[in-house]
Amino acid sequence: MVIILRNNADEKQLNHLKSWMKDLHIEVHETIGKKQTILGLVGDTTVVDIQMLRALEIVEDVRRIQEPYKAANRKMHPEDTVITVGDVKIGGGNFAIIAGPCSVESEEQICDIAASVKASGAQMMRGGAFKPRTSPYAFQGMRADGIKLLEEAKEKTGLPIVTEIMDLSQLPLFENVDVIQVGARNMQNFELLKGLGKVNKPILLKRGLANTLQELLMSAEYIMAGGNEQVILCERGIRTFETATRNTLDLSCIPALRKMTHLPIIIDPSHATGIASMVKPLAMAATVAGADGLIIEVHNNPARALCDGPQSLTPEAFDDVAKCVRQVLPYACRD
Amino acid sequence: MVIILRNNADEKQLNHLKSWMKDLHIEVHETIGKKQTILGLVGDTTVVDIQMLRALEIVEDVRRIQEPYKAANRKMHPEDTVITVGDVKIGGGNFAIIAGPCSVESEEQICDIAASVKASGAQMMRGGAFKPRTSPYAFQGMRADGIKLLEEAKEKTGLPIVTEIMDLSQLPLFENVDVIQVGARNMQNFELLKGLGKVNKPILLKRGLANTLQELLMSAEYIMAGGNEQVILCERGIRTFETATRNTLDLSCIPALRKMTHLPIIIDPSHATGIASMVKPLAMAATVAGADGLIIEVHNNPARALCDGPQSLTPEAFDDVAKCVRQVLPYACRD
Amino acid sequence: MVIILRNNADEKQLNHLKSWMKDLHIEVHETIGKKQTILGLVGDTTVVDIQMLRALEIVEDVRRIQEPYKAANRKMHPEDTVITVGDVKIGGGNFAIIAGPCSVESEEQICDIAASVKASGAQMMRGGAFKPRTSPYAFQGMRADGIKLLEEAKEKTGLPIVTEIMDLSQLPLFENVDVIQVGARNMQNFELLKGLGKVNKPILLKRGLANTLQELLMSAEYIMAGGNEQVILCERGIRTFETATRNTLDLSCIPALRKMTHLPIIIDPSHATGIASMVKPLAMAATVAGADGLIIEVHNNPARALCDGPQSLTPEAFDDVAKCVRQVLPYACRD
Amino acid sequence: MVIILRNNADEKQLNHLKSWMKDLHIEVHETIGKKQTILGLVGDTTVVDIQMLRALEIVEDVRRIQEPYKAANRKMHPEDTVITVGDVKIGGGNFAIIAGPCSVESEEQICDIAASVKASGAQMMRGGAFKPRTSPYAFQGMRADGIKLLEEAKEKTGLPIVTEIMDLSQLPLFENVDVIQVGARNMQNFELLKGLGKVNKPILLKRGLANTLQELLMSAEYIMAGGNEQVILCERGIRTFETATRNTLDLSCIPALRKMTHLPIIIDPSHATGIASMVKPLAMAATVAGADGLIIEVHNNPARALCDGPQSLTPEAFDDVAKCVRQVLPYACRD
Repeated sequence: MVIILRNNADEKQLNHLKSWMKDLHIEVHETIGKKQTILGLVGDTTVVDIQMLRALEIVEDVRRIQEPYKAANRKMHPEDTVITVGDVKIGGGNFAIIAGPCSVESEEQICDIAASVKASGAQMMRGGAFKPRTSPYAFQGMRADGIKLLEEAKEKTGLPIVTEIMDLSQLPLFENVDVIQVGARNMQNFELLKGLGKVNKPILLKRGLANTLQELLMSAEYIMAGGNEQVILCERGIRTFETATRNTLDLSCIPALRKMTHLPIIIDPSHATGIASMVKPLAMAATVAGADGLIIEVHNNPARALCDGPQSLTPEAFDDVAKCVRQVLPYACRD
Repeated sequence: MVIILRNNADEKQLNHLKSWMKDLHIEVHETIGKKQTILGLVGDTTVVDIQMLRALEIVEDVRRIQEPYKAANRKMHPEDTVITVGDVKIGGGNFAIIAGPCSVESEEQICDIAASVKASGAQMMRGGAFKPRTSPYAFQGMRADGIKLLEEAKEKTGLPIVTEIMDLSQLPLFENVDVIQVGARNMQNFELLKGLGKVNKPILLKRGLANTLQELLMSAEYIMAGGNEQVILCERGIRTFETATRNTLDLSCIPALRKMTHLPIIIDPSHATGIASMVKPLAMAATVAGADGLIIEVHNNPARALCDGPQSLTPEAFDDVAKCVRQVLPYACRD
Repeated sequence: MVIILRNNADEKQLNHLKSWMKDLHIEVHETIGKKQTILGLVGDTTVVDIQMLRALEIVEDVRRIQEPYKAANRKMHPEDTVITVGDVKIGGGNFAIIAGPCSVESEEQICDIAASVKASGAQMMRGGAFKPRTSPYAFQGMRADGIKLLEEAKEKTGLPIVTEIMDLSQLPLFENVDVIQVGARNMQNFELLKGLGKVNKPILLKRGLANTLQELLMSAEYIMAGGNEQVILCERGIRTFETATRNTLDLSCIPALRKMTHLPIIIDPSHATGIASMVKPLAMAATVAGADGLIIEVHNNPARALCDGPQSLTPEAFDDVAKCVRQVLPYACRD
Repeated sequence: MVIILRNNADEKQLNHLKSWMKDLHIEVHETIGKKQTILGLVGDTTVVDIQMLRALEIVEDVRRIQEPYKAANRKMHPEDTVITVGDVKIGGGNFAIIAGPCSVESEEQICDIAASVKASGAQMMRGGAFKPRTSPYAFQGMRADGIKLLEEAKEKTGLPIVTEIMDLSQLPLFENVDVIQVGARNMQNFELLKGLGKVNKPILLKRGLANTLQELLMSAEYIMAGGNEQVILCERGIRTFETATRNTLDLSCIPALRKMTHLPIIIDPSHATGIASMVKPLAMAATVAGADGLIIEVHNNPARALCDGPQSLTPEAFDDVAKCVRQVLPYACRD
C-alpha cells in the first residue's frame, strides 16, 4: 500500500499515522520528494481500512498494491482449485457443461430435458426453482415444488443439480442440491454469502451486472472466509451501453481471473447475450479461451418457456453446441 | 405493445398468437406493410410476458409501449404520494433532510451527531447498524447493538430513525425503526422486497449501481404489490467509467422519475461522490432540481469514522450545507 | 417505424402528420386503442428524421423498426462482402491476420518485424505512422517518414500495409498504403469518413470506445454512401467500469454484426486488453466465434516500444498465437 | 510516480531502469518490503511514458501520482482563468448563458432566435452550421452559408457567435466566429486540437461521450500546449446504460474539475438529456453547483427544427429558464 501525503503535512499527524501502522505490525518507508512525499507500507495491509486512511487530513491519496483478497488469491494458493461434484470435476484442466431450462416447469419438462442434455454430454443439469424476475407480475418459479422435481430428474439421470438460492431461509430445501447458485443480483447480498460460507457444498457465484472482477473475488472471499472454499466463479455478461445484446459477455475475464485466482471459472453465454443463436459461437470462444466450463440454457419448447425463452436452445441445438465445444476443447488455451 | 413479425410469418402460428392474446383480453390490430407486418396490442399488457412473445418463431421483435409498472405509475396515480414519518412529511412539496453517520459506533457518537444534525435542521437521522461492506475483513456494523443505540438517540432527540436492513431475518429488530432502508446492492433482492411489502413502515429504496430508473420502479412495484405503498426512492450514484468520483450522480433522474412516478425522490450526494467537499454543491443542485429530500453523511470525527470517512461531513460543514440548501429551496423547480 | 400518439391527439395536427408521410411515399396504418393510438409507417423510413417526429406535440414516442442503414445492411445485400487487398482476401470465409508494431520506429525495426510476422503467417502488416495519443507530450509517430518506412518494408516482404489516417490533409501520403485505418477516436469524425468515401481503397473502421454496433454501421454507411463500399469493421474493446483490462472486448459483436451486415469483421485483442498475455486466448476465441481476421501488435523489443509496449507480443509469442489460431480456424463457427 | 517491482527483479535490469530515470533527472527512492519492492520517482514525471515502464520485465505495475497535465492544472495555475469574448467574460465568478438553435436554418430563423434569446438575457448565441449527424442521410447543416447567417445575426444583435468546427479545412470560414466549438465526437481528434492550439480564439471543448475528466483535460492540454490557453470546458452528458435520458449529465464534474483545473466549466443540459422539459431543473442545478455558464438549445419552432427538435426550448420556455437561473445564481456554490 502506498500513501501519498499532502504538501506540508503536519508532523504530529504524520507521527500519529506512523505509530498507528506500527501497531498493526506494518513497516512504513518514506520517500521525500520536492513536491510530494510518499509512504510505502510493508506488511499484511488487508487489515488496513483504506477509507480510514483516505479520511486523514494529511493524506492526499492511497493506492493499494497488494490485493484485498487472500483466500481466493492465486499468489497465496498457486495450484488450481478442483471442485468435485459427485463424479464430476471442474477446474485444474477438468471441463464441465451444465445445461437445463431457465425454470423448472413440470416433471415431464425437467426429466425430458435432463435426459436429453445428458445424452448430449452435459455433466450437470441446471433449472430454476426460485426465479429472480424484474417484475413482480412475472412467473416467480415453482419454488419448493421445483426443487422436488429437480431431485426426481437427478434420480432418473444421475446428473447433479445446480439451482439458485435467493434467501437463506430457503437453505433447508437445498439439502439434496449439489451446487448452490448465487445469482448476479445477489452477488453482493453479503448476509447470503456469509450463510453460504458455513455450508459444505460448492457455490456457483455469478458476477453482478456492474461488478469488477476484484469485487467478484471479494464476494468469493466472503464465502471462503466462512470456511467454504468450494467456489465456482461465473461470468454471465455485464451491463454496458450496447443494446444489440442483452449484456456484454466479458471473455477477457478468463485470462484475467486465471492470474488473479485459483478458483474455476465458467461462462454463461445464454444470459450474457439473451439470444439463442449467439450461444454457439460464444460457447466455443469461451472454451478455447480457457474456461473451466459452461452453463447453457436448454428447453424442449423454447417458444413456451415460462421465462427467458429467446435465449434457450432446443435439445437439438444444444447437442450441436456440445459437439462443437468438444471439438475445440483439446486446443483450449491453458497458459 | 407492438409486435414486429418476421417476413412470411406462418399463418397457423399467427392465428395461434392472436387467440392467445384474445384469451388475455387483449385486442390485436394488424398493420401489413410490403416488408414488415406489425401487430398493435391494445389492453392491459402488463400481464403479457414479453420474453415469451420474443421466443415465438414468427416474432422478430416486441416493443413495450405501456410501462410494466402499475402501482408506482404516475399515469395511474396522478397525485404525488406524501409519506409521513412521525411529524415529518416527504413528497408533494414537503422536503426533508436525513443526516447521520455511515455507521453507528458508540452511544456517545450517535447521540452527539443526532443532537448536532437536529440543531442544524435535519428532520430524520440515519446510521448504519448492518453494514454492507465489499470486504469480509472490513467492519460489518454493530448490528443489533447498533439498532439499540439508534433507539436511544431517537429518545433523546425525537428524530425518526432511518437504517438499513440486509436480510429479512433481521426484521424483528426493526420494530422501533421508522424508515427501513434497502441498500443499492439489495435493490433486486426480490425476496427481501417481497417481505418488506408486508411491513407497515416506509421503505427507502436505493437505486442499484447499474440499474435503470424503470428497474428501480419495478423494485418499488415489488414492495407495493405486497400492500406497502410507502416507498421513497433514492438516487445514490451509478457506476460509469469515470474515476474522479466514486460513482456518477444522475440528477436527471429527478425530472425523469417525476414524470414516471408519484413516489418521492431523495438524493444521496455522500455515497454518490465519495468526497466530502462535493456534497454541498450537489446537495444544492439536487434541491433546486426538485428533489423531495436529501440523505447526507455526517460524522463528528470523519478521520476516525469506521467506514466511509472521506465522504462524511463534520457537523460544522453539515450546518453550512443545510443552510445553503434552505436558501435555495424556495426556488426549487417543481414543474 | 411506429409512432405512439399522445392521448387526445389534436385531429388537425394528426392529419398534417399523415399528409407529410404521404409526401414521403410512406403509408400510415392506425391502431386505435382505449388508452393509446399507434401509427404504423410502411415504406422507406430511412428518409424520415426520427427527431423531427419526436418533436411533434401529438407524438409521445417513435420506435424505429427498420434499421437506419442501407448499404451496410445484410437484408439488402445477403451475400458476404469479400475485400481484396493484393493477393489477400478478407470476408466470406477468407481469414487474414494483420500484424506489426504499434508505431513505426526505424527502418530496421519495421523491416525486421514485417519479415518475422510474414514468416509466422501474417497476411498483412500494420504499423502506426500517425499516432493518436492521449497526451500531447507522448510520442506522436514518425508521420510522413513512418509511411516511407512502411513502403520499404512492403517492398522487402510483399506484405500489404495497414496504417491509420488522422486527418484528411494526410491523404496524399497514403497513395501506396493498401488499407487505410480509421481509429476508434475518429469513428464519428464524419468529415474524415465522407472524405474516405471518395477513396478507392479498403477502409479498416475501428469501433469507438462507447459506440453501439448500430453506430459503427452508420459510420460505415457514411463511407459507403460516398461510393466506397470496401469497409472492414474492427472491434477493439469498449469502455466499461472494469479496470482489470484496458477495455472490455465485446466478442458478441461477431454473431451480432454477422446478422446485421455483410461486411467483414476483424478483432483487435491487443488494444482491447492492453496486456500481451491475454492476446492468445482472445485471438483464439475470436477465431472460433467466426471473426474474418485479427489485427495483432508485435514488436521485436516490447520493453522498448515507443508506445503500447505492454500489449505487444514478441515475434516468438506471435508465432505461437498464429499457430494456435490456425489450429482452431477449421472449427470456426460460421452459422 | 510509483513503480511496483516484481518479486526477485533482476538486479541488472533494475540498475538499467535507475540509470534511465537519472538521465531524465528523476530521483528514485526504494522501499524494500518482504513481498514487494516499490520505487518512488521524484521529479517531472510528465516526461516519462508510463506504457514504456509497464513494458519492462521487472515491473509489475506503475501508478501515476502527479497528474499528466500541466498547462490545465490548477496546481500550476491556482487562479481561475477568465475568458473574454467581446464584452462577455466567463470564469472566475463570471457566469454566461449561450443560447440558440441546434442548426442554423434560415436568416429569419437565426436572427429571430438571436434577438429573442438576447432579450431573455443570453450573452452569446450558438447555432450549428456544420452538423455532426450519426446518419449520412440526415441534414448535415448549411455549412458556409450557415456561418454567413450567424454573422448577420451577430451584426443585428451584437451577440458573439459560438459554432462548431468539424475539420481544420473549415478554419478559414471561422474568421468572424468568436468561440470555436469542438464537439463531443471530436474531443480526441488530436490533429484538430493541435490546429486549434495555433488559433487566437477561445475554444469551447465538449467532453466526449465516454471520456474521463482527466482525458478532457488532456485534450485541453493539446490546445494549450500549442499556445492557445483560452479553453472553455463543457459537460454535455456521458453514455451509460440508462435509457430514460439520452445521456447521463455528470454534474459532479463541476466540483471535480474545479479542483483539477483553473479553466471555466459550462454545462449543456439540452444535449445531456435530449428532453426539453428537463432543461430547466438541470440548468438550475448546474448553476447552484457552481458552473461558469450554460449552453442551451432554443428554437422558435421546435416541432420543425431540422435536428434535435425534442430537446429545444421555445423562446418563452427559455425566458423562464433564464429567469430561474438568475434567481439562484447569487446562491451558487463557489467553494
